[in-house]
Amino acid sequence: MKPYREMSRDELLALKAELDRQFEDVKGKGLKLDMSRGKPTPAQLDLGMGLMDVLNADSDMMTENGTDTRNYGLMDGIPEAKRLMGDMMGGVPAENVIVYGNSSLTIMYDTVSRAVTHGVLGSTPWCRLDQVKFLCPAPGYDRHFAITKHFGIEMITIPMTPTGPDMDLVEKYVSEDPAVKGIWCVPKYSNPQGISYSDETVRRFAALEPAAEDFRIYWDNAYAVHHLYDDRQDEILELLGECEKAGHPDMVYEFASTSKVSFSGAGIAAFASSAANIEEAKRSMTIQTIGHDKVNQLRHVRYFKDIDGIRAHMRRHAAIIRPKFEAVLAVLDRELGGLEIGEWTKPLGGYFISFDAMEGCAKAIVAKCKEAGVVLTGAGATFPYGSDPLDSNIRIAPTYPTADEMAAAADLFVLCVKLVSIEKLLAQ
Amino acid sequence: MKPYREMSRDELLALKAELDRQFEDVKGKGLKLDMSRGKPTPAQLDLGMGLMDVLNADSDMMTENGTDTRNYGLMDGIPEAKRLMGDMMGGVPAENVIVYGNSSLTIMYDTVSRAVTHGVLGSTPWCRLDQVKFLCPAPGYDRHFAITKHFGIEMITIPMTPTGPDMDLVEKYVSEDPAVKGIWCVPKYSNPQGISYSDETVRRFAALEPAAEDFRIYWDNAYAVHHLYDDRQDEILELLGECEKAGHPDMVYEFASTSKVSFSGAGIAAFASSAANIEEAKRSMTIQTIGHDKVNQLRHVRYFKDIDGIRAHMRRHAAIIRPKFEAVLAVLDRELGGLEIGEWTKPLGGYFISFDAMEGCAKAIVAKCKEAGVVLTGAGATFPYGSDPLDSNIRIAPTYPTADEMAAAADLFVLCVKLVSIEKLLAQ
Repeated sequence: MKPYREMSRDELLALKAELDRQFEDVKGKGLKLDMSRGKPTPAQLDLGMGLMDVLNADSDMMTENGTDTRNYGLMDGIPEAKRLMGDMMGGVPAENVIVYGNSSLTIMYDTVSRAVTHGVLGSTPWCRLDQVKFLCPAPGYDRHFAITKHFGIEMITIPMTPTGPDMDLVEKYVSEDPAVKGIWCVPKYSNPQGISYSDETVRRFAALEPAAEDFRIYWDNAYAVHHLYDDRQDEILELLGECEKAGHPDMVYEFASTSKVSFSGAGIAAFASSAANIEEAKRSMTIQTIGHDKVNQLRHVRYFKDIDGIRAHMRRHAAIIRPKFEAVLAVLDRELGGLEIGEWTKPLGGYFISFDAMEGCAKAIVAKCKEAGVVLTGAGATFPYGSDPLDSNIRIAPTYPTADEMAAAADLFVLCVKLVSIEKLLAQ
Repeated sequence: MKPYREMSRDELLALKAELDRQFEDVKGKGLKLDMSRGKPTPAQLDLGMGLMDVLNADSDMMTENGTDTRNYGLMDGIPEAKRLMGDMMGGVPAENVIVYGNSSLTIMYDTVSRAVTHGVLGSTPWCRLDQVKFLCPAPGYDRHFAITKHFGIEMITIPMTPTGPDMDLVEKYVSEDPAVKGIWCVPKYSNPQGISYSDETVRRFAALEPAAEDFRIYWDNAYAVHHLYDDRQDEILELLGECEKAGHPDMVYEFASTSKVSFSGAGIAAFASSAANIEEAKRSMTIQTIGHDKVNQLRHVRYFKDIDGIRAHMRRHAAIIRPKFEAVLAVLDRELGGLEIGEWTKPLGGYFISFDAMEGCAKAIVAKCKEAGVVLTGAGATFPYGSDPLDSNIRIAPTYPTADEMAAAADLFVLCVKLVSIEKLLAQ
């Protein structure tokens, strides 16, 4: 295909007329698809239904150390669940793990909230500081940015590269500005690009020399075991161990959950950190809760047994969602290849494909898709303050729709990209 | 029996010698009992094992409105669980309820934490105020006081009366001091006294005219359905409705859980309030979580079905714990009746018996029990800052030990009360 930029005005107008007709056709079909969130599809949830069978009225409800999961106690999680979640996070020792209820987002919010009201290991509570800043690699996860915004924390956008955040910038900010207290990271199959941080990036993280004593890396390992392929998989270095080696054991808060392993509506979540940070979190938990659901922790361990059980389960997830990723990517390649009106990632795992349209086109593309019945994540959502400076990035979440719906949605998407790009070129 | 105060010094010395011998005997038995917390006993937890059978691999996992409990969504709880928890709280409409995961303490902590960082319905965040105060009816629940202490909130002790907190004092503080932002209440079968607030007390709460716009009543309805008897039961007025009638719809935050209905380690908890307060809580939840465990909510509703199912279940709990309460009370009556060295409550529900020793004796009694192997809740724990001004109150938690253990523990307890009282009288 000829790049749109090289087309004459007349060629573009003719093409636009044809595409407008196609768009009206699609609109007439009355599509109604919500692709705004990375949601598992019912078939994926069905994979986990065995979880409902592992415990019954006659089950032994004791943990491996003889604690009754039905009663109070073991506020920081049952030992076997700590081990399982530590293994899921790439081999974090069980004693460095606290297991929570559903939703790792709650742990992230809590961790930031605690720093705001009580500081970090004795530092000044952030609510008493004039300025607190977080580095936000972008495009990134909108709910991370929502937490920092909620607490009035200033967000500094850090560009993403194919090997992770721009580490030159990260190092500069972290080492020079004591107001920089944290950085949000999704280190493996990042949301939305599906980028996994290179070993060099992880080592540079571990080697950071922060100006602020209470600077922490907020390491959201949300897609630790979420590979799409058997033969091609990203792996990342385990940051807690790297930080310890580098002499900065307390610099990381790591988060993970089974939201996209077992059930998004009934999973377990985990926090991993150094002994000192875990101790601080537990001191706060003593006041905050009588403990999370230990029966569900037991249910997860009895069902998955160990990390190999989780890996086998994730292969079944991949078999369901891989074809959807491939369907979208095939449409993007076929319809947009060579047109030079967009670029997209081809991730090996995670839940998203990231699409970069021509500058100034993202919002219009998302609006046009919506006009024909397909709801995408709001343009800009992947950037701090919901504002993409280039108005270019769009997050595509292919997991929830069926394969047929996904094909229809992808067809509409490329059509909207073409139309909006032509309008942009004609307006120049 | 002759009151100890009327005994001569010689009589007391003779009695002490005999009781000292008895104490050494008990010590020799090597008791090892922890009665420090209100914990269900295994037989009570066994009552709930049917919960493990209601969902299995073939179950329909949809809510009554067709939402998949296994996926994201319905962040504020499934409709049928809202209804059930609303009914448990005495008939709060489902739309005024949010259902959470295990532990209502987490909701209380969150509610205070949110007020500290973000204020209440637009009020100044408490972290920006010089002074924030809470009224603390005492004796009360130590974990309530731990939350307010954690956030540096000044606690003002309000004496308890047989009909609830001293309302003259409550009205005075709340109407005169804008720094007073809350009051902790356990309105039914209070912890530790088992007192239920009279209708007049509840109506005076609803009629409060706070000096602070962000004053809230923190209404921990922890023992709403926890009756010990079929024929004698306390009921309290439903405060949300009373507040609405009195023109103060936003003045209450109510909390409840199934910690002592289903499982302390895997229950569900709920928050109830006015439309405006619920809306505010939900706005914050959107940032804080992707939602609580909805499958466990579904499990609870499918198992208990409705409030009548819960009531029937609670009668089975009562059958297990009532004899333990009665065993303790029988020993107290038999051994301490007429001695005038202590007073105790005879609650119709809840989890505790409250004992008031002679002034200055509680710490010594708890220490002496511990010396012989029985751990009670620390003396003072039932007061703000862990400090009972009279050093008199002791919380007895009879539910966890077996009936035999309970009898042995009660025998030891009265022995320690006698000994410490005599020592006190001899020292005068």
